[in-house]
Amino acid sequence: MRTIKVPIEVSGRHVHLSDADVQTLFGAPLAVGRMISQPKQFVAKETVVLETSAAAFTRVAIVGPTRSATQVELSATDARTLKIEAPLALSGESTELKEPITLAGPAGRIEIKKNVIIAKRHLHISPEEAASLGLQHHQVVAVRTTGPRAVSFEQVIVVSRPGVDEMSFMLDTDEANAAGVRTGDHAELLLP
Amino acid sequence: MRTIKVPIEVSGRHVHLSDADVQTLFGAPLAVGRMISQPKQFVAKETVVLETSAAAFTRVAIVGPTRSATQVELSATDARTLKIEAPLALSGESTELKEPITLAGPAGRIEIKKNVIIAKRHLHISPEEAASLGLQHHQVVAVRTTGPRAVSFEQVIVVSRPGVDEMSFMLDTDEANAAGVRTGDHAELLLP
Repeated sequence: MRTIKVPIEVSGRHVHLSDADVQTLFGAPLAVGRMISQPKQFVAKETVVLETSAAAFTRVAIVGPTRSATQVELSATDARTLKIEAPLALSGESTELKEPITLAGPAGRIEIKKNVIIAKRHLHISPEEAASLGLQHHQVVAVRTTGPRAVSFEQVIVVSRPGVDEMSFMLDTDEANAAGVRTGDHAELLLP
Repeated sequence: MRTIKVPIEVSGRHVHLSDADVQTLFGAPLAVGRMISQPKQFVAKETVVLETSAAAFTRVAIVGPTRSATQVELSATDARTLKIEAPLALSGESTELKEPITLAGPAGRIEIKKNVIIAKRHLHISPEEAASLGLQHHQVVAVRTTGPRAVSFEQVIVVSRPGVDEMSFMLDTDEANAAGVRTGDHAELLLP
């Protein structure tokens, strides 16, 4: 089987916010903290508190710029800590919780039921590189890690959008910890 | 490839305690809460607090009966929360942390540096069943899960001890969450 090396990127819990929710939570636009690997995206200087009646996470990262809809991305471990049943979904898919969770900032609070997800693992790849490897947007592939906790991740969704330039295999913290890998490690993409 | 179905069992964070440490923490023997799948083992009614300067976990399960040495089993997510570098090891292997962590009970506290581990995933199997499948104690095998987060776990250690009667594939919470499985689900053992 043909394989190619792909860098791993691990996403911790984070939120994307709409303009209206930024206004409610902070009363002012987000300040850019540091740029991240996704084109034009940044981690904001601000953070939010994410809470349910069961637990709270403080200092949760905000990934900007703002989007049309607020979205919360958690690990399954986080969801269990918050005692919510968050669906497994691709970023941008529309989903809904049974009960809302709360986001709190210095200027206010919002309750959110929509788009609180556990992100499906995925492979970011430019359309050009996808074409050269014979991969389609939303195709399902497998990626293998090595080491003392080696795993083959199946059900990896190819996400090939204009603007992506560097290929990266996106895992959440549960997946990264289960495989014993971290951002910057490499995995093998198994080419179909 | 030959495969057989194997039930999954997920271990949350827990401790095993020595007699001396039970005495220090509780001043009395452990009370049996409920029996678990491992022969003659139980979860105690008592729990401990596990803490470092970075974080604390309350109500951490104690698995009895007592052992010759106290051992703490964490997920990699837990270790990160506690800000410790816990080694990946099989239960019973001797390991040591750089800095101690604290276990606290109603009667006292202990500091522990030894045997604070992230458990290597493993397959519990009786010596008879291992022999019938051609598997050796400490052999490395692979186990595959199915579903929307399907993974093939490599580096699964066969643990074949007298006293084990039911086969089970033992995962920690990171691994179970990464694979989207829970106790009672089934996986496929890939027979070499």
